[in-house]
Amino acid sequence: MKPLEYARLNQGRFLAELEEFLSIPSISTVPDHKPDVERAASWLREKLLAAGFPTAEVVPTPGHPEVYAEWLDAGPGAPTILVYGHYDVQPPDPLDEWDMPPFEATIVGDDLFARGVADDKGQLYIHVKAVEAFRQTAGAPPVNVKCMFEGEEESGSPSLEPFIREHREKLSADVAVISDTHILGKDTPSIVYGLRGISYVEVEVTGPDHDLHSGIYGGAVHNPINALCAMIAKLHDENGTITIPGFYDNVRPLDSEERAELARVPFEREAWLQEAGVTTDWGEREYTIVERTLARPTLDVNGMWGGYIQPGAKTVLPSKALAKISMRLVPDQRPAEIAQLIENYLIEIAPPTVNVEVRKLHMGEGAIIRRDSPAMQAAFSAYAKAFGKEPIFVREGGSIPVVALFQDILGIETILMGFGLPDDRLHSPNEKFHLPNFYKGIETVIHFMEILATSGV
Amino acid sequence: MKPLEYARLNQGRFLAELEEFLSIPSISTVPDHKPDVERAASWLREKLLAAGFPTAEVVPTPGHPEVYAEWLDAGPGAPTILVYGHYDVQPPDPLDEWDMPPFEATIVGDDLFARGVADDKGQLYIHVKAVEAFRQTAGAPPVNVKCMFEGEEESGSPSLEPFIREHREKLSADVAVISDTHILGKDTPSIVYGLRGISYVEVEVTGPDHDLHSGIYGGAVHNPINALCAMIAKLHDENGTITIPGFYDNVRPLDSEERAELARVPFEREAWLQEAGVTTDWGEREYTIVERTLARPTLDVNGMWGGYIQPGAKTVLPSKALAKISMRLVPDQRPAEIAQLIENYLIEIAPPTVNVEVRKLHMGEGAIIRRDSPAMQAAFSAYAKAFGKEPIFVREGGSIPVVALFQDILGIETILMGFGLPDDRLHSPNEKFHLPNFYKGIETVIHFMEILATSGV
Repeated sequence: MKPLEYARLNQGRFLAELEEFLSIPSISTVPDHKPDVERAASWLREKLLAAGFPTAEVVPTPGHPEVYAEWLDAGPGAPTILVYGHYDVQPPDPLDEWDMPPFEATIVGDDLFARGVADDKGQLYIHVKAVEAFRQTAGAPPVNVKCMFEGEEESGSPSLEPFIREHREKLSADVAVISDTHILGKDTPSIVYGLRGISYVEVEVTGPDHDLHSGIYGGAVHNPINALCAMIAKLHDENGTITIPGFYDNVRPLDSEERAELARVPFEREAWLQEAGVTTDWGEREYTIVERTLARPTLDVNGMWGGYIQPGAKTVLPSKALAKISMRLVPDQRPAEIAQLIENYLIEIAPPTVNVEVRKLHMGEGAIIRRDSPAMQAAFSAYAKAFGKEPIFVREGGSIPVVALFQDILGIETILMGFGLPDDRLHSPNEKFHLPNFYKGIETVIHFMEILATSGV
Repeated sequence: MKPLEYARLNQGRFLAELEEFLSIPSISTVPDHKPDVERAASWLREKLLAAGFPTAEVVPTPGHPEVYAEWLDAGPGAPTILVYGHYDVQPPDPLDEWDMPPFEATIVGDDLFARGVADDKGQLYIHVKAVEAFRQTAGAPPVNVKCMFEGEEESGSPSLEPFIREHREKLSADVAVISDTHILGKDTPSIVYGLRGISYVEVEVTGPDHDLHSGIYGGAVHNPINALCAMIAKLHDENGTITIPGFYDNVRPLDSEERAELARVPFEREAWLQEAGVTTDWGEREYTIVERTLARPTLDVNGMWGGYIQPGAKTVLPSKALAKISMRLVPDQRPAEIAQLIENYLIEIAPPTVNVEVRKLHMGEGAIIRRDSPAMQAAFSAYAKAFGKEPIFVREGGSIPVVALFQDILGIETILMGFGLPDDRLHSPNEKFHLPNFYKGIETVIHFMEILATSGV
């Protein structure tokens, strides 16, 4: 039997295993879920061993553990790939907006619904099952495979860089492979070659040192919520352009070639509006929606709170207001520099009536990946075979900081072999993964390993 | 024994009873506390009977019950007073900012700390104990006394107006008395003759119909938190003046006589800054702090929330953002008109990329009370006797909508006999009541009833 045939025959079991994986609420950002994150790591280790990896281990870190496995039987003459994925998931809130329980996988039509199904459990598991297909047919994969699965991706990956540095030798490979992005449509395969960076800060504005009665002090004590709103309002102009001084200084201008390439990305305005659930778009008028979301830097308030937020009418003038603000960055913006720029600006525009503290929560570098490398060409051919259509090269709006870390520390490029779809509702209620993409993903990875074994890297 | 002497001898027991009252978390705005609100009502009814009232009842309403008691033995020739108070309290949050449990009364020095101790359980209980002092000495109070204690004051009093209308005959009186305000200082008695109105709305801004990934849609979908911040920023100008069109149209200008009167209010900037816990004041420069807080209309965001507000860095572009906004009003602003003005303005300034809904949470009319009535003069003399110093007439920044209801429905004025202090931290953590004021309050009310019995109304 061929690996491809084995994979097709075993789709039902692969799905059942994935459903089990999805039932573990491995929410890395919520301390109460630490035992679940650990349970997911152990579960994954067992499945790696069952898939044929001779060794697989749960490696502790100061935060959540890494799961590491390797199978090097292809020998020193064969290419070595380093597969990265993350087994932790985003919190499911707001819970009441889910149409099904987030941790009981539910199939509706061709879609599998659950928190983390596309981001990233389902995509990660593709690689485990591709390896199993080789094991059960050819005896072993045709390339050396190292797997490194993280448990902190959704909480800023605090242990990731130290882990890669510490295990530099062990992780050495010719190329990294990550399935944590999406293709353009179920019949439109694509490969991401550009990722944005991220700079994520939390802003705390403090006015009075305790909550006050708004009827007694209002009008003479500056309300920190009003103050923070006024500051946030000054972060964009009417056009949606970011007004932080120096913010665009290092942005590499989009040249006409790149704009032409982005214009080739299939885009239907009506379908996009429907996916987003809005009636109209917003933002920099001088750029297309595709350019704004893939190739321009952006700023969003991801969360804000202050004062009384329960039902009813409490008349408090609160002591504090807080906001979480993230910025997506493009080449050549540096996350730490941008965090410093927003801190400086917020302090500059803060009225003298309040205090401002800016905490840096999470920094991730962006990346641009070569499209002419043998590994990228192998991925190109693998998609073409599995989907029956050549993939399109695209940029992605999100951030996968590990790509820059692999480049810097291990000196290798990363192939982003994503199988999600644009409407998978990552980080949102009703997250889903298109099941045919799960199965085609496994086939694509099988092709990729076979082509890479022949072509070399 | 004289009533005054009885009150002094029984201070210890009065305090113990108040502590028991304070241990009931009668938070009217939180549905889970409904049984506690009912328990507080029953407790109060029993104490009214114990104080000598021949009848006392817990009267159901569609919301929380009213407690009603009357003692009319002074006869038709004597004045009748209607005492109003509220036995419900504000929520204690933020809980972690309390130095003691909010529902276990704690004495520190001369102060009694607990949620609701000044607002309004301690002040309400003054009247119950004053009546008891007459009962145990003279046999009955020298005036007819009706007590009406509400359980919904901190949640917008939805049942209050229907209750007063329905029981118009029963509640008929010559004058109402409320102890729910503060005096200027422990040795500076004062009587409030002006109250601001209130208009309290909740604003909901909706962008996309579900939460989105900010890395995928940010920059091309308008973020409702950013949008709401920009709208809130447009509610004040740089001077702190409210920019809602028409907002000041009906504000009765402060004439020079009133400004001179307000300038007589004892005010020490440093002490005020310390009480408020701020380093500098804020707001309309053309008015003094006293004018801004007592005689000018104001606008505060009392609460705001949207997106991810747990620890960590979730990259969500949320579907919604909400804010609770209250405005304090002065004569002749009408709460419902002002609510309409802010709704119109918010809809007008909302960008076309979001939807805005404004919900009216709570409306309360302000009041200005005559200072030359016999009842007001009786109160004046009573304070002078109990505190050894003549009281100052002042306005108050807060709102007691029942004053306008008594005026409109019962046709009577209200005497605001407050005994709190400006630093009682109403609605805030560490709420307290100055114990000497509790005892002096009882003495003031005893004097008031005696003087009123002689002077008439």
